[in-house]
Amino acid sequence: MLVGIDLGGTEIKAGLVDREGRILLQSSIPTNAGRDYRLIIKDMQEQVEKLLKDYGAGIGDMESIGIGAPGLMNEKSGYVIYCTNLFWENVPLGIMLKEHFNKPVYMGNDANAAALAESLFGSTKGVENSVLITIGTGVGSGIIIGHKIYSGSHFAGSELGHMIVGSNFYRCNCGNMGCLETFASATAMIRYAVNRLERDKIKSSILDKAGDTENIDARLIFDAAKEGDQLGIETVGRMIKYLSIGIINIFNILDPDIVAIGGGVSKAGAYLTDKLKKEVGGMLFTSGIKYGDIVLAQLGNEAGLLGAAFLGINRNCV
Amino acid sequence: MLVGIDLGGTEIKAGLVDREGRILLQSSIPTNAGRDYRLIIKDMQEQVEKLLKDYGAGIGDMESIGIGAPGLMNEKSGYVIYCTNLFWENVPLGIMLKEHFNKPVYMGNDANAAALAESLFGSTKGVENSVLITIGTGVGSGIIIGHKIYSGSHFAGSELGHMIVGSNFYRCNCGNMGCLETFASATAMIRYAVNRLERDKIKSSILDKAGDTENIDARLIFDAAKEGDQLGIETVGRMIKYLSIGIINIFNILDPDIVAIGGGVSKAGAYLTDKLKKEVGGMLFTSGIKYGDIVLAQLGNEAGLLGAAFLGINRNCV
Repeated sequence: MLVGIDLGGTEIKAGLVDREGRILLQSSIPTNAGRDYRLIIKDMQEQVEKLLKDYGAGIGDMESIGIGAPGLMNEKSGYVIYCTNLFWENVPLGIMLKEHFNKPVYMGNDANAAALAESLFGSTKGVENSVLITIGTGVGSGIIIGHKIYSGSHFAGSELGHMIVGSNFYRCNCGNMGCLETFASATAMIRYAVNRLERDKIKSSILDKAGDTENIDARLIFDAAKEGDQLGIETVGRMIKYLSIGIINIFNILDPDIVAIGGGVSKAGAYLTDKLKKEVGGMLFTSGIKYGDIVLAQLGNEAGLLGAAFLGINRNCV
Repeated sequence: MLVGIDLGGTEIKAGLVDREGRILLQSSIPTNAGRDYRLIIKDMQEQVEKLLKDYGAGIGDMESIGIGAPGLMNEKSGYVIYCTNLFWENVPLGIMLKEHFNKPVYMGNDANAAALAESLFGSTKGVENSVLITIGTGVGSGIIIGHKIYSGSHFAGSELGHMIVGSNFYRCNCGNMGCLETFASATAMIRYAVNRLERDKIKSSILDKAGDTENIDARLIFDAAKEGDQLGIETVGRMIKYLSIGIINIFNILDPDIVAIGGGVSKAGAYLTDKLKKEVGGMLFTSGIKYGDIVLAQLGNEAGLLGAAFLGINRNCV
């Protein structure tokens, strides 16, 4: 039995997973980020012990623990290099869990873990090379090469959200100008729409429905676009344009079998992927070969936990 | 003994190479592109046979043949999918050479071959993951992952020159707007400088030295920049800015150990890499970790031939 932990800034999800990728039992506890890291790690330990107990199992039944977290992990040393959401820097997460449980512990970026789950059990199952782009508040991503997570020489790769693809009207949190995340995330869509409403004083059903700019979300914008609202169409169109640039760059660099789109924004479904396929199709380097497919991710919120459980398949053990 | 062939639009270079990467004997013949592909392949066969004869060796001494060419190769089927410089489409290059010599034949993109040579014997020797960017008329590139060439699922990857990084005043040959090649190649520098001279009628020592805009080349522009010429500084600065965006994108996607810069423009030497390191250093996602180094390629024009000879190390045999 494998244990997967999806460590987020708001909640910690943990689950018992079998070798076929079935989640046998899972639980969620609040992270209460900002506390001493030792308290948070202690909570995780107790969460795993409770799961095992509730399932009628013991530590002996557990093969390994895998943890996915939103940040930079040193997959070899067992240290979290940093994790903004938790205010962590150089935290010996893997080492402490290994000391406590005396089991192999594997760590990875949460988007990489999700990409691995999709590769093993979801939208990119069976193909050799794939990319998962998760679009929500930000743009996360995981790269699978040769059926394994590729995270680079310093575990800093597959940050597709910080690929610079143009010039924008505001800077990215990372300090650079023009990151994909500032064009293609839900946050980016909201900022663009609000900017047009407030600065350019244009009329839109988006504002009518939201009541206040603070209530605008990506779904409202997509719905407005589908209903023919001009600002909705413009905002979705801009997002599609830049996400397509991001995907064509991935095609021209990594040439994967599949690019899967996950995260909250992927709930726009075929409306989103149809537009992406059309836009990307017009930008292909050559019509002489088949390029990768663009599909929706399949595993939803469980991808992080599931992938974390399987990190041991291709990662270094702490 | 290995045989490497660097098939270009102008000349065909072939060489006998030993297992330690020493070129024992090499020759160059004109490609005379535009002819029936069978004639060109026949020339290559005779070129290899002459090399063997001149070296006092026979076909039996030859382990394999590797061919690098500027285009898209189907490394498995032995077909050149297309090669613009040769006006080739679906040419059974590998199959014909294999039939003729009855030896294993390996094919690859020439920039990938050069990246492999640098990885085995040059600037990126010993590291696991690296990227070679060759900057001349265009921007070529090769990606090495896990000491092996990575060319993607359809052999269409590692086209970093077609990574879209902004918006430019002219379109790329590929049809898209804002490809790295249109900002960072020698051609791009010349077009930008000429555009400023002709459209904006500005004064520059570049034109004084060139006499005519048709004589402007990248070296003249670099020299002018070093001497303090305003247009030279502006043109080099623009090239550095966008090449740095390309490199930071590579860092954030592939996170290699080393990015090596080759091709004619790399003759600008440390003047170029010092500026790149400074610019890229200011754009890193975090100062908390070590990122890849930026260095000059070491093998020059021989990288293509040398790498081609070693394609067999990690490629599929035709």
